[in-house]
Amino acid sequence: MGKTILLIGIGAGDPEQITIQAINALNRTDAFFLMDKGASKEKLNALRKDILDLYATERPHRFIDGTMPEREREGVAYDAAVADLNARKLAVFDRMIGEELGDGETGAFLIWGDPALYDSTIRIMEEIEATGRHDLSWEVIPGISSVQALAAKHRVTLNTIGGAFTVTTGRRLVQGWPAGVDTAIVMLDADNAYASLPAADSIDIYWGAYVGSNDEILISGRLDQVADEIVERRAAARSANGWIMDSYLLRKRGP
Amino acid sequence: MGKTILLIGIGAGDPEQITIQAINALNRTDAFFLMDKGASKEKLNALRKDILDLYATERPHRFIDGTMPEREREGVAYDAAVADLNARKLAVFDRMIGEELGDGETGAFLIWGDPALYDSTIRIMEEIEATGRHDLSWEVIPGISSVQALAAKHRVTLNTIGGAFTVTTGRRLVQGWPAGVDTAIVMLDADNAYASLPAADSIDIYWGAYVGSNDEILISGRLDQVADEIVERRAAARSANGWIMDSYLLRKRGP
Ligand SMILES: C[S@@+](CC[C@H](N)C(=O)[O-])C[C@H]1O[C@@H](n2cnc3c(N)ncnc32)[C@H](O)[C@@H]1O
Ligand SMILES: C[S@@+](CC[C@H](N)C(=O)[O-])C[C@H]1O[C@@H](n2cnc3c(N)ncnc32)[C@H](O)[C@@H]1O
Repeated sequence: MGKTILLIGIGAGDPEQITIQAINALNRTDAFFLMDKGASKEKLNALRKDILDLYATERPHRFIDGTMPEREREGVAYDAAVADLNARKLAVFDRMIGEELGDGETGAFLIWGDPALYDSTIRIMEEIEATGRHDLSWEVIPGISSVQALAAKHRVTLNTIGGAFTVTTGRRLVQGWPAGVDTAIVMLDADNAYASLPAADSIDIYWGAYVGSNDEILISGRLDQVADEIVERRAAARSANGWIMDSYLLRKRGP
Repeated sequence: MGKTILLIGIGAGDPEQITIQAINALNRTDAFFLMDKGASKEKLNALRKDILDLYATERPHRFIDGTMPEREREGVAYDAAVADLNARKLAVFDRMIGEELGDGETGAFLIWGDPALYDSTIRIMEEIEATGRHDLSWEVIPGISSVQALAAKHRVTLNTIGGAFTVTTGRRLVQGWPAGVDTAIVMLDADNAYASLPAADSIDIYWGAYVGSNDEILISGRLDQVADEIVERRAAARSANGWIMDSYLLRKRGP
């Protein structure tokens, strides 16, 4: 029989941004794995709960707890911290799938946005499969990513006509504008990387925080004219909510 | 009152890859604009028909024809051809919205994949709005893109850990690997650009045609080992169906 694992993309904040395919997957699931914890994850868990209440209505399900104690991250390099976290997740997945999911059952991860975008679950499932310890099959169900939700709200395209774009992180953006493209999309930026870009008068920014949720904030304009406003709104929202999730699209203006 | 225009992303081939938000939008629509024609567009229109039959069930709707005669494209530069096409589309949109949609009504475009990705409708709506000729509001509803459908089927991530990726076209890829990234995602490639990349033994390819539909073909592997197979399968599928829609993710293997 074996076990089935579903990685279900659930959108990035708006419970209507879930697909029929994802809803059908929810209703094939016996047990949902819960991975997030901590005050900053309340929002994510609130969306998950909304989604299960709204859509996972066709059969009973249970939860399998996979939360882990937080570790000190100060002073650890980003890649090392991610690698360490993933190693610990691997052990947790192994236990959850091996011990807590029965043969013939289906377990699912509810993944924020799209499972293919800055999320470690696909990589960990590859490793789990490679151990050969479990008789399992697994499937990925795409979801609307925060990038798409952002672009839709700003009514902006990801590419210019025939153009290319780079999706990158705040850490990389501080090292300079991505080569060869007129558009950069930035995620995972904890330090306002946009605010220190050169030639800000020839760049437009389309920024959004908590996109799709009730707390959504959208700001757009010429980078030199709106950067300060974004820095301020971002800091205020972050301290009001205790956490922030934001991303942005940057476009160089043509000659 | 004014008119409302919805740009609705409907996924890239699998009718289950549509969101609840998109379905709700279908059911707010009085008239759907039909833009595609020609034998090669049969598939697109078949998906649109499936989607309307399945989901646009709550109220009656009509269709507004916006198809245009095809123009000779041979020998015209790509950007010029796109610009010409967009100018003609602008005139058609102007007529459809101005003359065929009533005040207080909602019209919708059903957009393949995500409206923000290599699609001209957002740009044309901006221009329509800028003419000031219509009293209208418009909204973009994101959809699962072909890139996400492809990544999900291959169970591959778009980015490596902390990495960046570039989404680009076949025309750009022949000019060389995008700078500064280990991952390139290629759309709109009519000429097998992947097949002439140097150092193909250090690149993995995840290729897919007609992803999400019944004709789906998926091939992955080391580029030097699978490129010929892709070229052949692609040519055969193209001649069997009269057209092809394919895209791929390329990843440089680490040292
Ligand atoms: C670990 S990544 C996960 C991305 C997710 N898989 C997706 O497809 O959107 C988290 C980053 O996504 C972005 N993000 C996620 N949700 C967001 C939202 N609702 N609004 C703005 N940005 C968001 C932020 O840049 C955040 O740092
Ligand atoms: C004009 S673009 C439109 C892209 C669309 N807006 C999206 O989000 O996928 C058309 C290109 O998308 C890709 N594409 C669209 N549908 C596809 C599918 N079902 N399978 C593979 N590639 C697809 C191909 O690269 C094709 O040349």
